[in-house]
Amino acid sequence: MEQKFRYLTAGESHGLKLTAIIEGLPSGLKIDRNFINNELRKRQSGYGRGARMKIETDTVEIISGVRLGKTIGGPVCIEIRNKDWENWKIPMSVDEIDFSNRELLKLVAEKSFTTVRPGHADYAGSIKYNLEDLRDVLERSSARQTAIEVAVGAIAKLLLKEFYITGFSHVIQIADVKAEILPPNYTLIKEAADHSELRCADDIATDLMKEKIDKAKVEGNTVGGKFEVIYGNLPVGLGSYVHPDRKLDGKLAQAVMSIPAIKAVEIGRGVEAAILKGSEMHDQIYITKEKRVYRKTNNAGGIEGGMTNGEPIVIKGTMKPIPTLRTPLNTIDIRKKEEASAHFERSDACAVPACAIVAEARVACVLAEEMLQKYGGDSLEEMKAHYER
Amino acid sequence: MEQKFRYLTAGESHGLKLTAIIEGLPSGLKIDRNFINNELRKRQSGYGRGARMKIETDTVEIISGVRLGKTIGGPVCIEIRNKDWENWKIPMSVDEIDFSNRELLKLVAEKSFTTVRPGHADYAGSIKYNLEDLRDVLERSSARQTAIEVAVGAIAKLLLKEFYITGFSHVIQIADVKAEILPPNYTLIKEAADHSELRCADDIATDLMKEKIDKAKVEGNTVGGKFEVIYGNLPVGLGSYVHPDRKLDGKLAQAVMSIPAIKAVEIGRGVEAAILKGSEMHDQIYITKEKRVYRKTNNAGGIEGGMTNGEPIVIKGTMKPIPTLRTPLNTIDIRKKEEASAHFERSDACAVPACAIVAEARVACVLAEEMLQKYGGDSLEEMKAHYER
Amino acid sequence: MEQKFRYLTAGESHGLKLTAIIEGLPSGLKIDRNFINNELRKRQSGYGRGARMKIETDTVEIISGVRLGKTIGGPVCIEIRNKDWENWKIPMSVDEIDFSNRELLKLVAEKSFTTVRPGHADYAGSIKYNLEDLRDVLERSSARQTAIEVAVGAIAKLLLKEFYITGFSHVIQIADVKAEILPPNYTLIKEAADHSELRCADDIATDLMKEKIDKAKVEGNTVGGKFEVIYGNLPVGLGSYVHPDRKLDGKLAQAVMSIPAIKAVEIGRGVEAAILKGSEMHDQIYITKEKRVYRKTNNAGGIEGGMTNGEPIVIKGTMKPIPTLRTPLNTIDIRKKEEASAHFERSDACAVPACAIVAEARVACVLAEEMLQKYGGDSLEEMKAHYER
Amino acid sequence: MEQKFRYLTAGESHGLKLTAIIEGLPSGLKIDRNFINNELRKRQSGYGRGARMKIETDTVEIISGVRLGKTIGGPVCIEIRNKDWENWKIPMSVDEIDFSNRELLKLVAEKSFTTVRPGHADYAGSIKYNLEDLRDVLERSSARQTAIEVAVGAIAKLLLKEFYITGFSHVIQIADVKAEILPPNYTLIKEAADHSELRCADDIATDLMKEKIDKAKVEGNTVGGKFEVIYGNLPVGLGSYVHPDRKLDGKLAQAVMSIPAIKAVEIGRGVEAAILKGSEMHDQIYITKEKRVYRKTNNAGGIEGGMTNGEPIVIKGTMKPIPTLRTPLNTIDIRKKEEASAHFERSDACAVPACAIVAEARVACVLAEEMLQKYGGDSLEEMKAHYER
Repeated sequence: MEQKFRYLTAGESHGLKLTAIIEGLPSGLKIDRNFINNELRKRQSGYGRGARMKIETDTVEIISGVRLGKTIGGPVCIEIRNKDWENWKIPMSVDEIDFSNRELLKLVAEKSFTTVRPGHADYAGSIKYNLEDLRDVLERSSARQTAIEVAVGAIAKLLLKEFYITGFSHVIQIADVKAEILPPNYTLIKEAADHSELRCADDIATDLMKEKIDKAKVEGNTVGGKFEVIYGNLPVGLGSYVHPDRKLDGKLAQAVMSIPAIKAVEIGRGVEAAILKGSEMHDQIYITKEKRVYRKTNNAGGIEGGMTNGEPIVIKGTMKPIPTLRTPLNTIDIRKKEEASAHFERSDACAVPACAIVAEARVACVLAEEMLQKYGGDSLEEMKAHYER
Repeated sequence: MEQKFRYLTAGESHGLKLTAIIEGLPSGLKIDRNFINNELRKRQSGYGRGARMKIETDTVEIISGVRLGKTIGGPVCIEIRNKDWENWKIPMSVDEIDFSNRELLKLVAEKSFTTVRPGHADYAGSIKYNLEDLRDVLERSSARQTAIEVAVGAIAKLLLKEFYITGFSHVIQIADVKAEILPPNYTLIKEAADHSELRCADDIATDLMKEKIDKAKVEGNTVGGKFEVIYGNLPVGLGSYVHPDRKLDGKLAQAVMSIPAIKAVEIGRGVEAAILKGSEMHDQIYITKEKRVYRKTNNAGGIEGGMTNGEPIVIKGTMKPIPTLRTPLNTIDIRKKEEASAHFERSDACAVPACAIVAEARVACVLAEEMLQKYGGDSLEEMKAHYER
Repeated sequence: MEQKFRYLTAGESHGLKLTAIIEGLPSGLKIDRNFINNELRKRQSGYGRGARMKIETDTVEIISGVRLGKTIGGPVCIEIRNKDWENWKIPMSVDEIDFSNRELLKLVAEKSFTTVRPGHADYAGSIKYNLEDLRDVLERSSARQTAIEVAVGAIAKLLLKEFYITGFSHVIQIADVKAEILPPNYTLIKEAADHSELRCADDIATDLMKEKIDKAKVEGNTVGGKFEVIYGNLPVGLGSYVHPDRKLDGKLAQAVMSIPAIKAVEIGRGVEAAILKGSEMHDQIYITKEKRVYRKTNNAGGIEGGMTNGEPIVIKGTMKPIPTLRTPLNTIDIRKKEEASAHFERSDACAVPACAIVAEARVACVLAEEMLQKYGGDSLEEMKAHYER
Repeated sequence: MEQKFRYLTAGESHGLKLTAIIEGLPSGLKIDRNFINNELRKRQSGYGRGARMKIETDTVEIISGVRLGKTIGGPVCIEIRNKDWENWKIPMSVDEIDFSNRELLKLVAEKSFTTVRPGHADYAGSIKYNLEDLRDVLERSSARQTAIEVAVGAIAKLLLKEFYITGFSHVIQIADVKAEILPPNYTLIKEAADHSELRCADDIATDLMKEKIDKAKVEGNTVGGKFEVIYGNLPVGLGSYVHPDRKLDGKLAQAVMSIPAIKAVEIGRGVEAAILKGSEMHDQIYITKEKRVYRKTNNAGGIEGGMTNGEPIVIKGTMKPIPTLRTPLNTIDIRKKEEASAHFERSDACAVPACAIVAEARVACVLAEEMLQKYGGDSLEEMKAHYER
């Protein structure tokens, strides 16, 4: 965990609520609840989501660390209630249940399962934590926990915005359909993505992608894809080359790879860098008469030597198809030690747009940390004074 | 930095030596100097390396933390001398130089440069650290520091070997040439890779790759590529899904992405996961009559829910072409603020096989940390007793 | 923050509630809510407490990380509601207040103050965080936050109890009255302390201490004192001498010194060690015929070389008198920049017994961390198997 | 380990050398080798030291991270050679020894011992790390490792000096002799202490202390004592009250308590705070016409609410008598499991002045970290600009 912008989250998928505590924010930062809720809404939208998204409509509650609209230096606690809690009160009870009461027992047993779902945490989780009821694994390993992370990231974004640093994400591939015709600049890409049901800036690709999703749904199948996160207006020199664990690209890779279902992270040209020659890959540097340094390409994705180089940072993530299939996979029953069909729990056919929003949030947390490291400061005023120096 | 297996490295590319201190090893671990030196030799080999590799022939010196061949619980200090130091004593002097002595001044000035090399840390580094002589940036940002990291990783490997955990790497692509016909199992792939000048297990591909490298050299150009790191025999449940910063895939991504020149990290099928359907991607689970759990595929690369699942872990890295080109790129002079040709410093045409060895070492450090976290223990004996339980 | 047993707390003194998230507990640990509430009750009792203690009667709510009475591996979130919240809703609102509404403005203004209280965080806090309304400093710097820490410590104690490690605290001095006649062993001291209104095992001293407190109250003054925390049945070798930041005495000192109002921490004989000769100080070692190692003294307080040595650990803390005096001190108004009388906020005359309970909790957290470090394990079963080996 | 000013040290008492790597220093900091050596010399002086101090005369070598006299942003590696190494080459060999060679065997055996020394790390260390030859414990647990820590602290002091922050230490008690008549201000106390063989600013006390030490020597005994570390000119607001692990007093307590042989740490009035009434303890605040804030007392020792309050910080440490006695204590033989006399290794009769210097160094590291946290900055120029804002 980072030293300055550090946080812990807690909460189960069907528990009472999700909680996060963020420690290290400067005082004097305005916390705009609507902004956070809007980020939550973005995470919940996207073509191909299942029924749960409608139940939830997440909203954040700010519990502490904020007074009269602004941070006061102390840890910030936020919560998101699970709307479905009433139906899960018994099986998700934190207290022991009287199992001689058959009705209670039944309610718990209905939610228990012992057939591990391939592609999920179930198998390794049940062994690691010595848990026989896979409900105990599912509840925390669920992507539901990304809701509170998006809220944490939204607060990081509020800090970054004070320094005019903003970012966005867009979907560039669903299954084998790629976004190919993109608007000519980031402002327009963002705008187009915001208007797409799949957060994809290529209209024609969006339609093809929706077809893919529909087809997968019919088959009881799921699809994955790729997205891109872009942040601009960063100062030169966030991160460092002086020690391996201070490299910004490494930190970004950790932040994005640890999102559930992500199997690849790329910076700039990413895997294509293998094919390019040195003379093609590296972004040559120019200077205007007014002594403004610029580049004509950004193959590096804004990072050289593990540091921001002044160009926008560009990170791609690849999401695997969601592993909860209506047509279940072969697997084993962890209790009976015999083959079985995987447990099915309500699921989406495609969650790439949501995943892109989570990645935006994660990247924001890394960048907020780096800004705090470089500029220090205990209040926003002091941090800004350091920055503007 | 991790809590248990933590280390710091120091040293410049042309300084007296590289140093590392590793804290957190159990006592009683046999430190085999030959094993470490062999890892260092592997890092230095590979078709396409420049002249420096011959100068170096790195060997490790063990300074402390080891007595009569075994660790004693205290921090382990290791060093690698830079063979070329005699020629760099003056320009790399840690002490102030009397610049009224023109001869000394000349020796320093000869090694100074102010034209930033695109793709390197030079530009951002000089701004970040307020350094005008780019020699000050180059010396620490150089890939030379990976030598000591390979030695650190070798010690991590010695710990892993006590638990029968071993790994290897092989090159799967140079420029646009991919390894296509691979031996049928990891043992044979490792063997074939060990016999290839490019650490590539496909003989025919090796030859084509060498041609690519030769061609790049003639052009004064460089090429990149891809490699794969595989570790087997891991216990189920290293890493965790319970908090984002405990995911093993995230830690591996950080470890590999922060190697100089890496632009993409993939776990298992990686970017291909975008294209596969759920039913194709997820590794179904089977069980033998003897109750041994197995899978027929390993698309997940050994990691589900951010944890090892018992299958070998598979990580791919993409290396960009080395940014030091004999045919230099357009850039700026950081002092004069005008356009210029990039500084050229002795360089390789291709370093993908070396990079694969560095990645092996980095992954070993992550796994050693996870083993120490899971099994605890202050002596190797205690750790083994916990493991064998 | 430690790697394994890590936690963050949040919450203001008069906010809605206090929250903590604890990450790193093994699964399978029974969470006994009554035990936690009993610890909270102990923190609230003690002769000399003000009116607030009666308002509060803290009880913990367990929000997540626990299912059907046991931990499931994920982060544990707990909360304590502030009973007085209804009266503070407006001045402690997290949202902006419409200050054109004079009634709201008045409610906020009534709770604002600008005269810094010597001995509190007010002066430095207002400068550090650029806060003019000292309410913003008081709310987080208040000792109220120790309530949630006691709950966190109670959970650490539940883990320790699984390994038969238990501890307690007793007051050994209030003002200049020292506990002098103590029962002959720790079991009896604990028992006597539990029955004393001041957690003091010397009855006569208790009476004299109460007189001191009464006298201070009448004067509008406050008194401090000393307490001792003792934990027994620890395995040999928690902590380490191999690196300064791994010394157990250092970690304990941090844990206790960072409790509000603590000005000294002693291990074993503490400051008396200055006077003793080497031959008097060091605890000679003996062995029985049955090969049981023992000592006749415990001047070291159970720690040698920064490690537990098998004897009970003994830590003393000195608490300064509470700095909120009814007869206020000279100070300055931070806004007007002129001299003034310090703000008075409801306060206790003596809080040493409560402080001892907080110290017990803090020490429990350090020991839980060390146990997790040494024995590893993801479930309580695994951890126990490692321990019992 | 802290995030910004982090370091690791390595080395055994009779090994080849001690090494430290410091990561996180800004670039552009002038490293004055003479200043570091002078600190090392201060650690080695003091009435009552044994013969070893004369053998050593430690000097630092700067290996990396510094070029032409200044830091360049990368990790700084420093070393101190052990002068006595030639005599210990065989018993402290890092390589395995051919024990069929009886001469080699004898050299090793001569330095082995199995009778644990009470008060040292021997007993717990041998159990923890499963080491039978207590030489393996002694070598790292020896106070010799404080030499390199003094060098690390000297570098921290060089950073602090750039912000006009300076500190010193003086001895205030040896055995039962206390310094009573002290010069009227810190400048004069420092001056007097620098001229005392015992770093004690009270001449008469110095003489009495020397008598105590002489007497202990004659008896084959040892004495402890107390010292005080003072740092001035600190900005208001280092440390924080917002989370327990950010309290400056806690960090200082850890830094000082983890020095070998320290049994108590006090801030400001320390243990005397128990006796003072609230009205006596708290440092009232005044303001001049020129709006300069001041206090007439500094009972808090410069820290309120876990933060610097602008007054000098004052930390007291209590050192127990050195546990290596010429007249040995009763103990056990760890191999034979029977009672025995403790092993005697060359030792001092009193090391309180040296310990005070180590404490100065440790405190400097904590303060350097806090300065880096508050002001950020990658180069000294940037850090200063932030500070001066």
